[in-house]
Amino acid sequence: MKTMRAARWHGTRDLRVEEVETPVAATGEIVIKVKRCGICGTDLHDYAEVPTKSIPVDNPHPLTGHKAPIIMGHEFAGDIAEIGDGVEGFKIGERVTVMPLHRCGKCYFCQRGLYHLCVIQAGTGLQWYWGGFADYCKVKSYNVYKMPDTMTYEQGALVEPTALAMYALDRGNMKPGDNVLIAGGGPTACFTMMCAQAAGAGAVYMTEIQPGRLKMLKDLGVTEAFNPTECNLDKELKERTDGVGPDIAIECTGSEGGINDCFHVLRKRGMYVQSGLSVGQVLVSPWEWALKDLNMCGLWCYNTYDFEKTIKMISTGKVAVEKLVTKVLTLEQIVDAFELLAFNKDGKEMKMQIDMEL
Amino acid sequence: MKTMRAARWHGTRDLRVEEVETPVAATGEIVIKVKRCGICGTDLHDYAEVPTKSIPVDNPHPLTGHKAPIIMGHEFAGDIAEIGDGVEGFKIGERVTVMPLHRCGKCYFCQRGLYHLCVIQAGTGLQWYWGGFADYCKVKSYNVYKMPDTMTYEQGALVEPTALAMYALDRGNMKPGDNVLIAGGGPTACFTMMCAQAAGAGAVYMTEIQPGRLKMLKDLGVTEAFNPTECNLDKELKERTDGVGPDIAIECTGSEGGINDCFHVLRKRGMYVQSGLSVGQVLVSPWEWALKDLNMCGLWCYNTYDFEKTIKMISTGKVAVEKLVTKVLTLEQIVDAFELLAFNKDGKEMKMQIDMEL
Amino acid sequence: MKTMRAARWHGTRDLRVEEVETPVAATGEIVIKVKRCGICGTDLHDYAEVPTKSIPVDNPHPLTGHKAPIIMGHEFAGDIAEIGDGVEGFKIGERVTVMPLHRCGKCYFCQRGLYHLCVIQAGTGLQWYWGGFADYCKVKSYNVYKMPDTMTYEQGALVEPTALAMYALDRGNMKPGDNVLIAGGGPTACFTMMCAQAAGAGAVYMTEIQPGRLKMLKDLGVTEAFNPTECNLDKELKERTDGVGPDIAIECTGSEGGINDCFHVLRKRGMYVQSGLSVGQVLVSPWEWALKDLNMCGLWCYNTYDFEKTIKMISTGKVAVEKLVTKVLTLEQIVDAFELLAFNKDGKEMKMQIDMEL
Amino acid sequence: MKTMRAARWHGTRDLRVEEVETPVAATGEIVIKVKRCGICGTDLHDYAEVPTKSIPVDNPHPLTGHKAPIIMGHEFAGDIAEIGDGVEGFKIGERVTVMPLHRCGKCYFCQRGLYHLCVIQAGTGLQWYWGGFADYCKVKSYNVYKMPDTMTYEQGALVEPTALAMYALDRGNMKPGDNVLIAGGGPTACFTMMCAQAAGAGAVYMTEIQPGRLKMLKDLGVTEAFNPTECNLDKELKERTDGVGPDIAIECTGSEGGINDCFHVLRKRGMYVQSGLSVGQVLVSPWEWALKDLNMCGLWCYNTYDFEKTIKMISTGKVAVEKLVTKVLTLEQIVDAFELLAFNKDGKEMKMQIDMEL
Repeated sequence: MKTMRAARWHGTRDLRVEEVETPVAATGEIVIKVKRCGICGTDLHDYAEVPTKSIPVDNPHPLTGHKAPIIMGHEFAGDIAEIGDGVEGFKIGERVTVMPLHRCGKCYFCQRGLYHLCVIQAGTGLQWYWGGFADYCKVKSYNVYKMPDTMTYEQGALVEPTALAMYALDRGNMKPGDNVLIAGGGPTACFTMMCAQAAGAGAVYMTEIQPGRLKMLKDLGVTEAFNPTECNLDKELKERTDGVGPDIAIECTGSEGGINDCFHVLRKRGMYVQSGLSVGQVLVSPWEWALKDLNMCGLWCYNTYDFEKTIKMISTGKVAVEKLVTKVLTLEQIVDAFELLAFNKDGKEMKMQIDMEL
Repeated sequence: MKTMRAARWHGTRDLRVEEVETPVAATGEIVIKVKRCGICGTDLHDYAEVPTKSIPVDNPHPLTGHKAPIIMGHEFAGDIAEIGDGVEGFKIGERVTVMPLHRCGKCYFCQRGLYHLCVIQAGTGLQWYWGGFADYCKVKSYNVYKMPDTMTYEQGALVEPTALAMYALDRGNMKPGDNVLIAGGGPTACFTMMCAQAAGAGAVYMTEIQPGRLKMLKDLGVTEAFNPTECNLDKELKERTDGVGPDIAIECTGSEGGINDCFHVLRKRGMYVQSGLSVGQVLVSPWEWALKDLNMCGLWCYNTYDFEKTIKMISTGKVAVEKLVTKVLTLEQIVDAFELLAFNKDGKEMKMQIDMEL
Repeated sequence: MKTMRAARWHGTRDLRVEEVETPVAATGEIVIKVKRCGICGTDLHDYAEVPTKSIPVDNPHPLTGHKAPIIMGHEFAGDIAEIGDGVEGFKIGERVTVMPLHRCGKCYFCQRGLYHLCVIQAGTGLQWYWGGFADYCKVKSYNVYKMPDTMTYEQGALVEPTALAMYALDRGNMKPGDNVLIAGGGPTACFTMMCAQAAGAGAVYMTEIQPGRLKMLKDLGVTEAFNPTECNLDKELKERTDGVGPDIAIECTGSEGGINDCFHVLRKRGMYVQSGLSVGQVLVSPWEWALKDLNMCGLWCYNTYDFEKTIKMISTGKVAVEKLVTKVLTLEQIVDAFELLAFNKDGKEMKMQIDMEL
Repeated sequence: MKTMRAARWHGTRDLRVEEVETPVAATGEIVIKVKRCGICGTDLHDYAEVPTKSIPVDNPHPLTGHKAPIIMGHEFAGDIAEIGDGVEGFKIGERVTVMPLHRCGKCYFCQRGLYHLCVIQAGTGLQWYWGGFADYCKVKSYNVYKMPDTMTYEQGALVEPTALAMYALDRGNMKPGDNVLIAGGGPTACFTMMCAQAAGAGAVYMTEIQPGRLKMLKDLGVTEAFNPTECNLDKELKERTDGVGPDIAIECTGSEGGINDCFHVLRKRGMYVQSGLSVGQVLVSPWEWALKDLNMCGLWCYNTYDFEKTIKMISTGKVAVEKLVTKVLTLEQIVDAFELLAFNKDGKEMKMQIDMEL
């Protein structure tokens, strides 16, 4: 039995770097030698909260049959190490990134190509045992997307979070010249801002409370960022949009304040996009939806086939998302990284990645 | 000075049938001899509530310069009695119905043909002094739509509320074969149900609490109606939709319960339509919007040019909205009618109309 | 070896009713006892023309490996007779209809749920050996859709051509109240007209040259039908649409005349839908597309999952497509039927079906 | 009577720089001191062809009452020199650009905000007497859009052709990451390419025959340009799009070859956009539209309110359309410029502008 290093989730705040069995590619599967894997906000929720939202603890997952301990990590890139039977179109050694969603292929949504809405979907490193914080990870062949030669592993590990941002623009139907408001200044908000700029936004405005983050946002390319607790956001935005308000508001905080800020400042017939996963109930004023004749939508992941376009956006340099990587660590440092990001939020770090070869 | 009868709003619960000056058509205006005018839910809110939502009391309206007293009534049909200078395409005696919204014609929204979103819009019988509960009413020529010979005045006075319902389907992008849920069983909900059936809905389900109304809904053509307090609505709908849930939910109650019912039962990527004007704040769970990858929208009135299509739907018999008229009264009975509808809600009446010639 | 009757295509104008081997359900397959099967225009093209467009003659089809002789027939309904391994959710004896397209499941389009655009797709009874003009037919389990109890086999065999018509409205984005022009008066045009009426069209106009057909169209529910060789079509339609022209034109003839009629009469920003398969090159004026700022689309089959909605439209009586069946024959009469429809086009027959139990 | 210089069209190949009466702002009008005005392909058609397509010769235009001689020029920017009665929101001296379309404001299309489809529309410098090749030009106040301080007159005179390009992307529903083919390498094609890149296209491919132009396209930012007479365009594009073909093809030549190239190489369900005004009839194969399930549209001008977004795209540097200006001339040189562009097409010039102050 071959073994490898892996960071496994055993319970809340119980993530262990351990020596575990190396995966073997079954029929339809591919094993990837992981190079880089990013830490996602979803990872942090599962790390810090009781009960966990994503990782199955008591009962095996209906699609995968897996439950904790689970190897975490779903934003990764690496090289193909092994190819299972029945897989066509791939070669050992090819540089690839991973679309982490697994699907049943049979339900109402899978039959419509809406695999990300599969009723028993599973995420690599979440409800599927194998994950990217390990020397090797195995996935289904449909999870694997080839990287162009010019794309780095660092970029490859950023495709997944960028796909989320691209999906926000797709669903929000952003058009070139649109004025976009993004509520929040965290990683998802920043990926979204960079994609909006690359898609020809007329202006992208953001809200953020931490002074350090406000400075970072400017360096990353935001048109203008506001601290909504220190200004009249509606007034500021109206002044910059001929008195009309932004065309699209993408809510990335999930907070009651952020949500209502967006509804309040949007122009009539504007588009509200719920990107941030709000964890509880919030008070809203639905008459505002009606009075403004608003369009709205919520986002879950991305169309799985968006990965191809996202890879192209990154590899051609249209979105320089690598600017968002503020620190690269070894696998052995992963618990410290989770502790820092989950409990010591000073806002200095944006996206942290684990480099498996450091 | 010629005079006429008119029901004027002087204040909350203070509607008076009075002898007032008859309107004269100024440039660009048309005077209509009113035949039928319906009582709308908005009328009842203005009648019953303090402060009034719609009618300007202290300051004249920025577009019209009008304030209370205001002649109420915005769902009406009649004959053209007088035509002002500069109006083309109309003749004295023509049978017409009225699209009640007035607009500035200059703002961001008017420049895009979105007249119903005009920033200083005014409604006939609300922020425009003249209204349909009178022998004569004057409006702008762009408010006037001709009725086919086969259309009755009763039908003509139903075009406006039907246009609201048509707009819900338009914005909700209802497709033939769709399973539609309508929350609520009041007049707007019923207009919407009838239009959805006419547009080829696969099934239209409704929710309603009053037993009498449940029976009425069946007679009006609903596929099935449920009392959500006496059944598991989600379970009932899933059973009727292959376990998936409705494609569209049109919320017509404006209540926290109705709103959350809709979000809860919709299928993933379903469409939520906020039709009912919710008057306060409600608790919702935005993670449901995200988890289900929902589409959503709020409704304000209708595209003003929808009137032509709505007239066609009614006059060709595709929607038999005249079934919704449960009582026709004289102008002298209008205060009793308002009192009944606003304060003695037994649910027996659906749409009441005033016949100016009774 | 069990045998059964089947009508097999051996070559142009060489269709033979023969005793052939009965199919056996392999893994993932279902065998259906056929009850009713309709004759489609595509069948007639393959029957009458040299070379055949659809049926592979020299080389086996890349997806199925099949080539002539092929059992024809792809519009059929029947009972499940046998279920292969790995198939879930079906029972012997269930009444079903068939969505005839087979797909690779792997290509760019299949990955997006656009199975009808699969690059190596195969049609039952065309590029897949087994077809509906036989006592038994086997297909993939994903081809099989259950029929409600209230649906007859006659209706079940009409789901496929009705799905084509529904797809025209879906792609043409028909809205309730729209004025629709359908060029042509053949079966596809009639299915489309009936669906447009069921979807709340304001009016559906058709063109047809044969006097007998013009009469039939009226009985089937068209608003008005015109012989374009005997009237000024543009003038007639403008008179009926306030001088504007139809909102949508669905071209079902595939002829140069029909195509240009549609482009010529459409209103600006109207929608052109190419439904008829035009077999050659035609002269058009693309400046008309530009000058009118037109929307246009071509149609290939239907979204495979449209079948569920189409079944609902027929089974609830929203579209009474069974009115289009003008003759029901035995399998032994099939060659006569093909000869009549392909070479003796008097226009008296609309849709002919073979009843396997007559 | 004050006079000014103006280049007036008197007939085919008869453009004269003359001293004519200076315009005076009537009610609702604004007079602009012209600084820069570009030469458009439409100008060249009117200059070179018999009969003229745009300029009314025999009968006065139904909206404006104007006919030849007409002052040409509809791509211009300048300063406000005079403001008529009833005009609000403008000041003398403000730097502005012009949206050249005049409208009736009453027809079916104007009522829907589709002013560019007005049934009796008129273009400044075409069917409206006053044009941009003059010291002063008067237009309606709704034609005037303010320029940001950072925008040059050179850029301001490029807003109109850029708006055309933006409209192609809007109607073609281009999404970030899309592979775009543009048929043709002339000015409109180049504006469109630059906008597509700014909107985040995955790649923009162009076709062009002249070797000099091919080199220019590369400098302007095309991903790759092909000479379709010297390569297998379909093969080249399939190789660059994983064997699928481009997502969108924007046809800017109006030629039979260009049109069929686009239909031939597009992927299934791709989008065809007819931007070039094809002047005659062309042979096409509508079965290709059907077989590929294509979306298609034709373009006429632009939504008039697109100007605001286009101004923002240019002024923020998202599209550096000023690169397309290859020569700036004096008004006295205009006839030579027209002769060169219309009859000596060596392809060396892209966009030529007249500077009124040189």
